[in-house]
Amino acid sequence: MPHLLLIQCPDERGLIYKITAVLHAHGLNIERNDEFVEREDNVFFMRTELAGEVAAETLLAELRAALPPAATIRLTGNRKKNVVLLVTKEHHCLSELLVRHAFGELNATILAVISNHEVLGELTRRFDLPFHYLPHEGRSRAAHEAEVLALLAAYAPDYVVLAKYMRILSPEFVAPWANRIINIHHSFLPAFVGASPYAQAYARGVKLIGATAHFVNEQLDQGPIIAQNVLPVNHTQCTRDLAQAGRDVEKITLARALKLVLDEQVFVHRNKTIIFD
Amino acid sequence: MPHLLLIQCPDERGLIYKITAVLHAHGLNIERNDEFVEREDNVFFMRTELAGEVAAETLLAELRAALPPAATIRLTGNRKKNVVLLVTKEHHCLSELLVRHAFGELNATILAVISNHEVLGELTRRFDLPFHYLPHEGRSRAAHEAEVLALLAAYAPDYVVLAKYMRILSPEFVAPWANRIINIHHSFLPAFVGASPYAQAYARGVKLIGATAHFVNEQLDQGPIIAQNVLPVNHTQCTRDLAQAGRDVEKITLARALKLVLDEQVFVHRNKTIIFD
Amino acid sequence: MPHLLLIQCPDERGLIYKITAVLHAHGLNIERNDEFVEREDNVFFMRTELAGEVAAETLLAELRAALPPAATIRLTGNRKKNVVLLVTKEHHCLSELLVRHAFGELNATILAVISNHEVLGELTRRFDLPFHYLPHEGRSRAAHEAEVLALLAAYAPDYVVLAKYMRILSPEFVAPWANRIINIHHSFLPAFVGASPYAQAYARGVKLIGATAHFVNEQLDQGPIIAQNVLPVNHTQCTRDLAQAGRDVEKITLARALKLVLDEQVFVHRNKTIIFD
Amino acid sequence: MPHLLLIQCPDERGLIYKITAVLHAHGLNIERNDEFVEREDNVFFMRTELAGEVAAETLLAELRAALPPAATIRLTGNRKKNVVLLVTKEHHCLSELLVRHAFGELNATILAVISNHEVLGELTRRFDLPFHYLPHEGRSRAAHEAEVLALLAAYAPDYVVLAKYMRILSPEFVAPWANRIINIHHSFLPAFVGASPYAQAYARGVKLIGATAHFVNEQLDQGPIIAQNVLPVNHTQCTRDLAQAGRDVEKITLARALKLVLDEQVFVHRNKTIIFD
Repeated sequence: MPHLLLIQCPDERGLIYKITAVLHAHGLNIERNDEFVEREDNVFFMRTELAGEVAAETLLAELRAALPPAATIRLTGNRKKNVVLLVTKEHHCLSELLVRHAFGELNATILAVISNHEVLGELTRRFDLPFHYLPHEGRSRAAHEAEVLALLAAYAPDYVVLAKYMRILSPEFVAPWANRIINIHHSFLPAFVGASPYAQAYARGVKLIGATAHFVNEQLDQGPIIAQNVLPVNHTQCTRDLAQAGRDVEKITLARALKLVLDEQVFVHRNKTIIFD
Repeated sequence: MPHLLLIQCPDERGLIYKITAVLHAHGLNIERNDEFVEREDNVFFMRTELAGEVAAETLLAELRAALPPAATIRLTGNRKKNVVLLVTKEHHCLSELLVRHAFGELNATILAVISNHEVLGELTRRFDLPFHYLPHEGRSRAAHEAEVLALLAAYAPDYVVLAKYMRILSPEFVAPWANRIINIHHSFLPAFVGASPYAQAYARGVKLIGATAHFVNEQLDQGPIIAQNVLPVNHTQCTRDLAQAGRDVEKITLARALKLVLDEQVFVHRNKTIIFD
Repeated sequence: MPHLLLIQCPDERGLIYKITAVLHAHGLNIERNDEFVEREDNVFFMRTELAGEVAAETLLAELRAALPPAATIRLTGNRKKNVVLLVTKEHHCLSELLVRHAFGELNATILAVISNHEVLGELTRRFDLPFHYLPHEGRSRAAHEAEVLALLAAYAPDYVVLAKYMRILSPEFVAPWANRIINIHHSFLPAFVGASPYAQAYARGVKLIGATAHFVNEQLDQGPIIAQNVLPVNHTQCTRDLAQAGRDVEKITLARALKLVLDEQVFVHRNKTIIFD
Repeated sequence: MPHLLLIQCPDERGLIYKITAVLHAHGLNIERNDEFVEREDNVFFMRTELAGEVAAETLLAELRAALPPAATIRLTGNRKKNVVLLVTKEHHCLSELLVRHAFGELNATILAVISNHEVLGELTRRFDLPFHYLPHEGRSRAAHEAEVLALLAAYAPDYVVLAKYMRILSPEFVAPWANRIINIHHSFLPAFVGASPYAQAYARGVKLIGATAHFVNEQLDQGPIIAQNVLPVNHTQCTRDLAQAGRDVEKITLARALKLVLDEQVFVHRNKTIIFD
């Protein structure tokens, strides 16, 4: 697998020239290159797949010298990332990820599954992965979150995946993991505010059920969108059928989003994503 | 084209038997039959395509005698419906309907186009249809709506199509046309409240742009949904591109919804549709 | 779960009346009813969900008396069906079905998995299901098929699912299971004849990869289509990526087709399906 | 609108560096840049949107000096292209293009419409465009093609669009316009060989109807694919309904393909397209 160079910086004339001059001097070949300039804020994004012997330290030093001081530069061997999954009771997203993991299709190592309920322990153990049951009952939110955070700190994954984790996370929980937590939730056109969204969707007779995968930031469900998808539904489907369609589209959408993130194809700028796919 | 029998009534045992007994006695053949029972309110819906000589008056009288008093029974020769289009400045939905109309693909006669702006007059006249310019400037909302309503009353269409009519309709306007006005508007997952929804969608980096076609009732954009669709978008598309995608999906979705309504495939119950397609 | 009445017979005037008269006399209520008349051959299809006490024997006798002699009439308690899966080396379809089965989402009992390779045994055993390894090497086709048929006869499933079983079945194998074997395979627009279809699809730069689920009859891949789906692809995806997209769309399409069949929503007429969904 | 630089050449180390060095020396800014390397043949593709004063002649000379001799280099002001449409009797693709053209949404000037039938003359004249009726009856294929080619030569468009032109073109016709003729046709999964494909699709009960837009080369329907799309269909739709679905998906797919070509987002390599969208 080639090395990846990921650059995000204020746009200015000659950036690509300066970057490729450094790469050229290092004798590196560009296997694939994607660039994008966000025009509103004039931000430059570049993702480059490199072939050749990489002298990482000097390469990074030369790039830093060539680029504006505000540049974010990452050089990675595109190593497999580590992830920890947080779940509650619904299996559909967890199943999808465990199966893909078992057959080497995830481009990630699942280190562990953490849950506030016991019910998905059996499924997790079928795939020989550690399952941590951290009940929230009888604990304050802060105490429970501290337990989860401690476990996350011990595993130190690259990303945390909320594979239907039905607890609202406090800003204190999210802060150290900003844009490293990926969440999935159902989405509707139009949106339904309040409880029982599927019952509301049924009452309105919606014809599409959707899902949105996104990074989590301080505003829980308002972070940068990574992937969205919809499935058609109709009037013969009861509230329970709509919820099943919701689960089917959620698992596909989460798997797709995770693949994009794990393959380092996603940049975040303000509250949106730049995706090179 | 066969006759259509459309029945909506409280569900009770033996409804289909009673109805088909009447049809059988009349020597009518059922070419296609769709039924559905809405379980929450126990409402029965039936749409039947009939072949044979229909003695409409006695048939309806016998059906009324056989069915619960609250039944709504319609018998139609599936004649071509008449429609009037209301538009403002955007052409995409109007163009789509004018072209389909010109080639006999709409199953409706467009009687006229009414607009609060002049700009779409030229397009309408290319297709030899009357265009009425009723400016809203310098008039009260009530006065303007009275003018439009008077024109609608003169044309007496079966349906009014808001093909991007950018005026908010008062409940007084809507009341006499309840569930006979069809509207189209863009839709997002998640929804964006307030002004400039495409700019908001851009800022959030949405990956899908959708459209919803619905009947208009007292709550303007909250009426029963007829059709929904989405198109994929990505980060390279600016706010203007997203708006273009929105127009493309709007015209397809409106044409689809209109076809369902004009072919009498849509029932309305409370705030949702039952669609036999 | 209600009883299901499934009727397929030559169309004639008054069929629905005659059928519902019998149901009415039995005091049964129709919960949902779908009918369709295939106009080319004048064949009538009806699927009825019934509520109430069903006296199966007399009901069937009375229906037989009321309907044309050529009628096929089935009355079922909508019991869970039994299935046996045939697989070779690819896991994606098997995984999807095992997970859905484990969580009670399949509306079927998987009795066993049979394979001509050993590789998927581990996955199957994770879900505590019997796995039969019947190697084809060193055996004639006839001998190998006889072994598989014997095992199928022992399990006596309602349906056999070819979840990526990469052996061509002889007409002799298929005959006793006609329209009870369900197969999945990739599909392209346009189609590619011959070996390495994904390499051909890559060379032509296709933009969509599809899958078709169908019943198997004498002409292996030419049986009645149950479900089809596509996923978008682009020029950056190599032959291997196209094959991955093919696997993703295959598993979704097979699961969808299987659900339709297991819920008794599929009729077969000549070489096509009538699907009440 | 910015200038566009389009390069296609054998891949070698340092290409991007060499190109951007020239652009940098000219004081040009890269607004958007897409690159792709086709790995099988090691071909490099680059599409660059440039801002700044372009000294075209010297810029091209310097790029030619810097790049391998086999390089194809095009520099364009992204000017509006000219197109001529060839049609027969079906209006759906023509209508779609005429409407988009009338409202400035096509990024092209339609110079004329040529047809071997008279029927679409009225529609074309509604949009004030020249319509040339060149009947093929009573003429040899060679004579008829010579007439069409003469007219094309007179108009000298950038692209010829076969918007449902139902004549098979000879290799002699195609040769001078290779990869500058765009065609649209229906597509099925699986494909149906021979006459009446919609009747065959009906007999097989297909669940999707598709369309493929492609460049025309010597093998008429086998040229590089630009865009593909599908629409869902079901058993209630007769052969005529399937054909209507085919028309709907054809017009959307052709419009999409044309937009990609007119915006210079499409490269052709061997028999496939590289599309930067």
